[in-house]
Parts: sequence; C-alpha cells; structure tokens
Amino acid sequence: MGPSLIVTTDLNDSAFLRACRREPVPYTPVWFMRQAGRALPEYREIRRGVSMLDSCMRPDLVTEITLQPVRRLGVDAAILFSDIVLPLRAVGVGLDIVPGVGPVVAEPFRGPADIDRLRPLEPDEDVPYVAEAVRLLVKELAVPLIGFAGAPFTLASYLVEGGASKTHARTKAFMYADPAGWALLTERLADIALASLRAQVHAGASAVQLFDSWAGALSAADYATYVLPASRRIFAGLADLGVPRIHFGVGTGELLGLMGEAGADVVGVDFHLPIDEGARRVGPGRAVQGNLDPAACLAPWEVVAARTRDVLDRAKGLEGHVFNLGHGVLPETDPDVLERVVDLVHTESARTTTR
Amino acid sequence: MGPSLIVTTDLNDSAFLRACRREPVPYTPVWFMRQAGRALPEYREIRRGVSMLDSCMRPDLVTEITLQPVRRLGVDAAILFSDIVLPLRAVGVGLDIVPGVGPVVAEPFRGPADIDRLRPLEPDEDVPYVAEAVRLLVKELAVPLIGFAGAPFTLASYLVEGGASKTHARTKAFMYADPAGWALLTERLADIALASLRAQVHAGASAVQLFDSWAGALSAADYATYVLPASRRIFAGLADLGVPRIHFGVGTGELLGLMGEAGADVVGVDFHLPIDEGARRVGPGRAVQGNLDPAACLAPWEVVAARTRDVLDRAKGLEGHVFNLGHGVLPETDPDVLERVVDLVHTESARTTTR
Repeated sequence: MGPSLIVTTDLNDSAFLRACRREPVPYTPVWFMRQAGRALPEYREIRRGVSMLDSCMRPDLVTEITLQPVRRLGVDAAILFSDIVLPLRAVGVGLDIVPGVGPVVAEPFRGPADIDRLRPLEPDEDVPYVAEAVRLLVKELAVPLIGFAGAPFTLASYLVEGGASKTHARTKAFMYADPAGWALLTERLADIALASLRAQVHAGASAVQLFDSWAGALSAADYATYVLPASRRIFAGLADLGVPRIHFGVGTGELLGLMGEAGADVVGVDFHLPIDEGARRVGPGRAVQGNLDPAACLAPWEVVAARTRDVLDRAKGLEGHVFNLGHGVLPETDPDVLERVVDLVHTESARTTTR
Repeated sequence: MGPSLIVTTDLNDSAFLRACRREPVPYTPVWFMRQAGRALPEYREIRRGVSMLDSCMRPDLVTEITLQPVRRLGVDAAILFSDIVLPLRAVGVGLDIVPGVGPVVAEPFRGPADIDRLRPLEPDEDVPYVAEAVRLLVKELAVPLIGFAGAPFTLASYLVEGGASKTHARTKAFMYADPAGWALLTERLADIALASLRAQVHAGASAVQLFDSWAGALSAADYATYVLPASRRIFAGLADLGVPRIHFGVGTGELLGLMGEAGADVVGVDFHLPIDEGARRVGPGRAVQGNLDPAACLAPWEVVAARTRDVLDRAKGLEGHVFNLGHGVLPETDPDVLERVVDLVHTESARTTTR
C-alpha cells in the first residue's frame, strides 16, 4: 500500500496538489495518463459489451472505472474516466468512438458554415452524468480527482479530419486558408472545454488537465498564431477557481514554453526529452509532469527501475514535479509493473526529497 | 522551365551537389521527398494495377516514375523510386506493402532467434533490377540521382512490430530487454542498407539519403545508445565513395546533432522547427535540407509563397541548404503548387544568393 492510500482529512494538503502548487512535498506524487484503461483486467471486464461513449455516460461505470487504478496501483490522483469528444457529441455533433480506430465524425467540418453546428455546452443539461459521476467519486476518493477536457486544436482536428490523422493536413489547410473562421471555431471549442471543466470543478474535481494531444503536429510559430489564443482563453477562464491547471500534448518539445504561457500551472513533458530539459523550456514559475516512456514499462523490471530513478534524479531541484508517464499507459502494460513504479517513486523520493 | 533543366555537362557542378558540399551555389536547389508519387496524375496512371513492390522491381517503371517529377516540376535532383523494405524482401523476409496500410511483415521478429532470418544482401543477385534502373536513369537525367535506403531503427521497427506502429513499443521493449541481440539485428540491417546504397552509387547515383523515418520515437539518450552505432556503420561504409550522404527522419528535433554525428553530410530538418534552429542543432560542418510543412502546400498560394520565402530567409547564411519539404509530399497536393514552389525557390534565391 502506497502513501496515497493514507486518508488525508484535507486533500488540499495532498502531495499531488502541493507538487502542482510547487510547495514542498513528503514524496513525489505519481499518477499515470490512461491509468483507467485496457491495461487493467478489471477494466476490460467492466467494459465488456459497453461502448466507450455509453460507458462515459453512466455515472456508476465512470465511478468504478475511475476508482480501479487508485485501488490497484496506489496512485496519488484519480482522473475522471471520460473522453475528450464527449462534449462535442453532447452539443449535437454526430460522432462515435470506433474500437481500434478512435473518434469518427459522421460529417466532418469542411468550412466556415460548419462552425454553427457547434452550440455552447450547457453542462447541467447536456452532460449531467459527468457532474454526477464527479460527485459520487469525491465521496469515495482519498486522493484528488483530476477533471479534463480536450484542447481546441485537438478537437478541431477531429472535427475537420473526421477522425484521427497522421498529418492534420486538412486542419492546417483550414487554419492557413481561413484564419478568421479558424479563430471562431477554436473559440467555440474553447468555450465548450471551459464550460465542461468548470462544471467538473464545481462538482468536486481538485485539478484539471487540458489535453492537446495533437498540438505536437505544429511548429511553435503556428502554435503561437493559431492555438495559443484559444487555449489561453480556457486557462484564463479557470483562474478564479484556484485549482491547478495541467496542460499536456505529445511531441510538444518545441512548444513547452508556449504551453506554459497559455496559462498552465503544470506542463506535461513527453518522453522525447529529459524532464529537466523540459522544465528548462517550460521556464520558471510552473511545475512539470512526466515523463517515463510508456514503452519502457514493457521492459524487464531493472530497466523500468533505472529509468524511473533517472526521471527522479533529473527532477531533483525542480520547482515542482508530478511523476507520470510521457504518454498514456500502453494497453499491453503489466499492471504489476505500474504498481512497482508507484512504490519506487514513493520510496525513492521520500528518501531523497529535501524540499 | 526551371534552371534544373539546363543540361550541365558535369553533374558534379550541379547546384544540388554543390549545396550538399557547402560550396557556393547560383540558386538554392530544391527537390521534394515523395516527389515521385500519388500527387502526380501520371504516377497514379502508371501504377494502376501494379503493386508497389512489383513496380519497384521493374526497371522500366522505376525509370519512368523517377523521371515524372523531374519533367513536370523542374526539381534539381531525382530520387530513385523504390521502397525501404525492398531489400528486406530480397533477403527472404516475407512482407508486402498493403495499400493504405504500409509494409506488413508476415512473421514479425520476436526474439534473437529471428535475427538469423536476415542474411547479407548481394545486390547483383538479390536486387539486380535496382542497379539496372539506376543505369537507365543516369543516361536520361540532367540532374543528380539520389539513391536511398532505410536506416536500421526504422527497418527493425517494421520487422519487430510487423508493420507501422504509433508507439514502437515492441521494438523498444526488444532493445531494452536484449541490447546485445538488438545490436546484432541493427548491425545486420546496417550491412543490408550499406550494400544497397553502395550498389546504387556504383550504378551511378550521385548522392544517397538514409531514411530513419521512425527515429523520432526515441529520446536522444536512447538514440545514442541503440541507433547511432548502426547508422554510423552505414555512413562510415560510404565514405570512400565521395558522394553526399543525407540523413532524415520526422520528429527528430532532439536528435539532429546526433544524426549529423552519425556521419551525414546533409541533415534533413522536419517542419517542427525553423530551419535555422535546425541548422544550429545540427552544428557546423554539415548542410541542412528542408523544411516547408507539406500541409502548407494545401493552403492558398499566398500562404505557400510566404512560407517558402520564410524558409529561404532563415536559410540565408547557412553553410549549405537544399530546399525540400519537412516531410513527404501529401497525396492530395496540387502538382502545380509544387512547380510554383520550385520556381519561387529558384528565382528568389538566385536574386539574393551572395555566396
């Protein structure tokens, strides 16, 4: 049993939230992106015969799936089980999540006229099951709950491409050809993400993570022009809530400084660069999260342990560090390895943490 | 008609080879990765009913397909039409290229025992049609011909994953778990690539490009440990031939210095970072190639022109610059746009080139 299962009367004093705020911690907190997912047999069991989006709409399932990794792995934070495209469907975009494929949009956005297909999200009416699940969860959880949403660029890419894309070519062509239309599209998506995140925090989430999964497809110049304004709108709109705001995308080594400037308190660093170099690019005044390569978790334990220690060593002396993978847990990961990583992070960091 | 169609009696004095050698040029040379491909209607026509691998094995088709973009676009170099997995099939690995999917390996490599499935490549016997196509091409071409091969990491990933992979998780698990087996595997793949490249140069290719398409999946530390030795073996084995050696992979912003250290004369920079920043990371003593975002070619012409000029502006004063895209031509690209890019690169750089 890791330290995270010790019930703290005040979550605000938890290692996870303290690290996000760059305050001294008794040990480095750890959670894993996609910790609630296919790597866990109990997840595969409970999802049997239930589609992804249906499972996200059932508070009983969301609660159970969100709790599974907390129970099994002893992580220091839970993350709400959901999907970034859920609010899009809730405002009327025809889409589904196809197993092995990802989100598929029935009628992709092709031009400015499509932007009006996005109406504002009214969380109480459109996604009542999300807040309900959050309320159920915070009664059960002894660790903070992280709410999340998809960032405007990533959501726009799904809408414009009609699904996952390797090149994001249509999305880029849209934004280059019609900057005003693009600004409007991403502003609407920002407002949807913001409404969703505010509702999650009001229901009890202690922190939020904004996933810009595909932002790494852009150069820093394009990110600054076409993405930063809308992402900044979201972070600014969360400021009054006082919860840590985490921001992550994969392949964002060139964007880390800008992702911090967008208004994040914690910037996720993927596995392509050392966490200390990532922190240098993020700049002072923000914590970092990361960054063990998820593929390393498939290696023999000595390799996993050495790489985990390397991340901790490099993170020593940083202003704030939340241990995580540098991308989501791979479905083929042995959960026992994840549990051992949690234990190792806790024990090693408790021994050496001086702050 | 671009300057590239002026027949020079000595290709060695061509703008392309001069730029690769960091010598003064009358204008910036330009070619496009995947210039011979689906963006050209004449390519789609000639490939109708002929599989990818079959077309690579027919010197008449290879010659015609390689010449198509030179005729239409006026580029300063041709690149042999082929595929990086061809030599693997030639040494007996069961694989095919499935349209819309990519290479599929019938029995993926799972452990050290599989390494013996790779015998050395004997170009004269295993891939005679490649040298034959090169010989036919150099008779026709007024611009240099670039030969190419796949780098060991990328080829190993196809063999281990059984095809294209988003995570390269099995490949990484293999190399972390069995470094000695991995070293042997990549050494054999290096020797296959080297034999293939040497045969192409002996038949008349004026330069070579080593594609490490997937190397960007690795951190610099992993690249240095698991990839650099085998890639270095290839470049060292080409040194006596005196032809420029180009090296490229996408998402390699963190690896550019190491890819130069591997022994490349020219390092390709993808579209994620400005070409001058790429050149800074590559370091002195090497030319760079790149880096217009292929997706930008789908935008209105004013955007394409502004971005082309931006690359040229940033490349001014670099030791050597070959204009290219930051990744392959997208199939949906209008060839007329590519032709206009070639003209713009030639005229703009001829006006401003001072070296």
